[in-house]
Amino acid sequence: MKAKTPQESYTLLTNIVLPSETNSLNNMFGGELLARMDRVASIAARRHCNQVVVTASVNQVSFDLPIPLDSVVSVSAKVSRAFRTSMEVGLEVWIEDPKKRTKKKANSAIYTFVAVDENNKPLVVPELIPQTEEEKQAYNAALRRKQLSLVLAGRLAPKEATELKALFS
Amino acid sequence: MKAKTPQESYTLLTNIVLPSETNSLNNMFGGELLARMDRVASIAARRHCNQVVVTASVNQVSFDLPIPLDSVVSVSAKVSRAFRTSMEVGLEVWIEDPKKRTKKKANSAIYTFVAVDENNKPLVVPELIPQTEEEKQAYNAALRRKQLSLVLAGRLAPKEATELKALFS
Amino acid sequence: MKAKTPQESYTLLTNIVLPSETNSLNNMFGGELLARMDRVASIAARRHCNQVVVTASVNQVSFDLPIPLDSVVSVSAKVSRAFRTSMEVGLEVWIEDPKKRTKKKANSAIYTFVAVDENNKPLVVPELIPQTEEEKQAYNAALRRKQLSLVLAGRLAPKEATELKALFS
Amino acid sequence: MKAKTPQESYTLLTNIVLPSETNSLNNMFGGELLARMDRVASIAARRHCNQVVVTASVNQVSFDLPIPLDSVVSVSAKVSRAFRTSMEVGLEVWIEDPKKRTKKKANSAIYTFVAVDENNKPLVVPELIPQTEEEKQAYNAALRRKQLSLVLAGRLAPKEATELKALFS
Amino acid sequence: MKAKTPQESYTLLTNIVLPSETNSLNNMFGGELLARMDRVASIAARRHCNQVVVTASVNQVSFDLPIPLDSVVSVSAKVSRAFRTSMEVGLEVWIEDPKKRTKKKANSAIYTFVAVDENNKPLVVPELIPQTEEEKQAYNAALRRKQLSLVLAGRLAPKEATELKALFS
Amino acid sequence: MKAKTPQESYTLLTNIVLPSETNSLNNMFGGELLARMDRVASIAARRHCNQVVVTASVNQVSFDLPIPLDSVVSVSAKVSRAFRTSMEVGLEVWIEDPKKRTKKKANSAIYTFVAVDENNKPLVVPELIPQTEEEKQAYNAALRRKQLSLVLAGRLAPKEATELKALFS
Repeated sequence: MKAKTPQESYTLLTNIVLPSETNSLNNMFGGELLARMDRVASIAARRHCNQVVVTASVNQVSFDLPIPLDSVVSVSAKVSRAFRTSMEVGLEVWIEDPKKRTKKKANSAIYTFVAVDENNKPLVVPELIPQTEEEKQAYNAALRRKQLSLVLAGRLAPKEATELKALFS
Repeated sequence: MKAKTPQESYTLLTNIVLPSETNSLNNMFGGELLARMDRVASIAARRHCNQVVVTASVNQVSFDLPIPLDSVVSVSAKVSRAFRTSMEVGLEVWIEDPKKRTKKKANSAIYTFVAVDENNKPLVVPELIPQTEEEKQAYNAALRRKQLSLVLAGRLAPKEATELKALFS
Repeated sequence: MKAKTPQESYTLLTNIVLPSETNSLNNMFGGELLARMDRVASIAARRHCNQVVVTASVNQVSFDLPIPLDSVVSVSAKVSRAFRTSMEVGLEVWIEDPKKRTKKKANSAIYTFVAVDENNKPLVVPELIPQTEEEKQAYNAALRRKQLSLVLAGRLAPKEATELKALFS
Repeated sequence: MKAKTPQESYTLLTNIVLPSETNSLNNMFGGELLARMDRVASIAARRHCNQVVVTASVNQVSFDLPIPLDSVVSVSAKVSRAFRTSMEVGLEVWIEDPKKRTKKKANSAIYTFVAVDENNKPLVVPELIPQTEEEKQAYNAALRRKQLSLVLAGRLAPKEATELKALFS
Repeated sequence: MKAKTPQESYTLLTNIVLPSETNSLNNMFGGELLARMDRVASIAARRHCNQVVVTASVNQVSFDLPIPLDSVVSVSAKVSRAFRTSMEVGLEVWIEDPKKRTKKKANSAIYTFVAVDENNKPLVVPELIPQTEEEKQAYNAALRRKQLSLVLAGRLAPKEATELKALFS
Repeated sequence: MKAKTPQESYTLLTNIVLPSETNSLNNMFGGELLARMDRVASIAARRHCNQVVVTASVNQVSFDLPIPLDSVVSVSAKVSRAFRTSMEVGLEVWIEDPKKRTKKKANSAIYTFVAVDENNKPLVVPELIPQTEEEKQAYNAALRRKQLSLVLAGRLAPKEATELKALFS
């Protein structure tokens, strides 16, 4: 299985915020954005492994700016690290003012997907080789995040989470 | 008002075909694709003029390939020509096989938008200056299409549709 | 296969514009109307041929009046001409003021459908015999539109598009 | 206020059953049909009174036949009786086999609407004058149904429900 | 087949009213509430019989209070009586003011479901044994309602509707 | 401002998985579940503070079991800890087999909400006082999670994240 770069899984969804997607403050509903990010991230994961993928976890989503009705919203995703059968995907959400065309970053998120066969059994995925400096940082952070989720789930002893532990010493 | 290039309005929406968007043959429903193209094209038009835009006409949409459930679909749009208050937008739709990652062109379409103020009155839009050979061809074809729609609407005498008439002589 | 009249395929969908179907100007979103017209037109085509049909092209849609939130919208469709395996369908969209009950024509459109079997292969459809003067005009215009789309697709030499060419001479 | 006939409120919505509207047996979901009937009935009530209307009650809906995926479904409605500020609307639902074009009645329903001003206060509506024999029967049955719902709500003594009582004596 | 109590089928759906679910008065659309009640009631019926169920009839729904945008709405359902193959389900809808947290009853409804096998044939369901005083009243009223719907459908002679007749004598 | 218990914010949404909410494996789409959890969690947060709330972050969501089409899904939420202007909400997702009525835990999640005024400015929220042993554990874990997200966002030095650091020493 041939290794891939993050760029090969890069996925972009640009769309408008319609009235049906807003909350009572006339901003995009959080749940709608979570769903849209899930779709984009799943395409990035699928482009990395060329298999059916299912969402395994959402590790971190921060909602930094409200997204007003009628904004142009760009959600982009690329794979940040591949493990044996899972892929971590990093997402960014940008909004464009409809009139001024200035852009601002509104959100970022980390989702994890698993490649599965038709019986829902995990499949091995290609390795990921980060290229840019930013991709390398995301690649390293992904391992700490994986250790963290294993620790929190009680499936890894904190002292064995080497990379994560280093952060606190 | 500063002229713009087609590239400045380029917009891309990559998404999956979900079960809720299919017809009884398990392919994407035509109406769903028309709606998705309308959203992408309206963003391209808005990026060109930085105003609110409304759909004025759909001039031509051809459905060349069925788009099966679960395909990754990319809809891209850019402005092909700007008239006084209207913009013609060209769209392409590509599908990716989820497993093989081959890409095929499934559709193309031409939509026209008008920039409007809050009372729905037309606003003047920036000029478009095509750059590549392909953009120049689209720019010229746009004038013929405009003449054609004026002729068909009875608002232009056929013999005055100079560019269009040349095609048949 | 027995020939049919346009009236036999007549289809009417009357519905309200809900908040979830509007744009930021509180008018019906163009994409939503395109999708609704596709559904109505596909029923008309299906009633003509009693087969599964798929959208082949949208030849012309003009958005003449904005359709405000809460309007009563009537979309009607009937087959305007049948070719060997395809059917041209003409649509009209009328809006009713909720209080005054006056009616205005907001849009018209031309869609083309192909009858298909379960492998997506085209099937022969019944002939259409226009009855009224208006149906006869639509029937003749349909041939010019078909020639036009063949010319634009490069599948017919302009000089062979006899009916269309007559328009410009 | 001028009296009206049932025919003046007649409303027809013809549409297809899409995958997104079905249950796990591949038939139209009951809730989806209830919502669609509510929209059609509210247009009929609005056409009778030319006011904003709100659903007051659903008095009776019987689901007689399952409606399979991809059926053509026609929902028709007309006002059956007008009271001071409320209107009873009768609905019929017919399905068409996509290939055979036979029609069968799948459902019938009775909804009641009230005309309201912008503060949700009831408004007086025009009288209804039934024309056909079937419209006259529906007109009489409407009174019995109104008495019944008042009795069931404890707002009318059973012995004062004259028309209803006659049924059981 | 073991008899069950109403409590065993109790089902609660708490949710918000989003902009996409409102009418032009900014209150929840009647059709949307009917659909939501259908989903909750069908779960209660399914919990009673552990079979697939389909909506057989909506016997009575009263809309007593408008439900404003952004309200917290609780729809609860439990089986009120089991007949041989059908179950009557009673529903209550409560709204909570988002700021004051006062609760008000907005609607009540009666739906009837039938348990079916994969060929849509009715299946026998367990008996229901009411426990509380209120459950016993609902249990008795259910029989009167069933007689009433049989009388109205012309499938039971009014004089044989013993429980119902008693109401009017 | 009066302190509250977790039970006072307890919210339950029981619903079915419809065809429109599934992916190509006929399981509930991850994005749809994320959106549904967001709605339930936001009600719990709102019940705690009686203010408008917006999603601030999704801290952790694990998808442990696929949720098949037609399952009965229960999403429950309660506030696990209140900070000055934010509330952490813990969620559990359970699925019921439609025929056997066995229940299994499919997911758990942590969302954070902020109470805001009409200008989107944070508002102080009531204190939360955990009652049961399980609520006390969630209350303590919430502080570690908050420190973690501050550390990951570079807004807290790792050595000052006292509770979190203790985990790794």
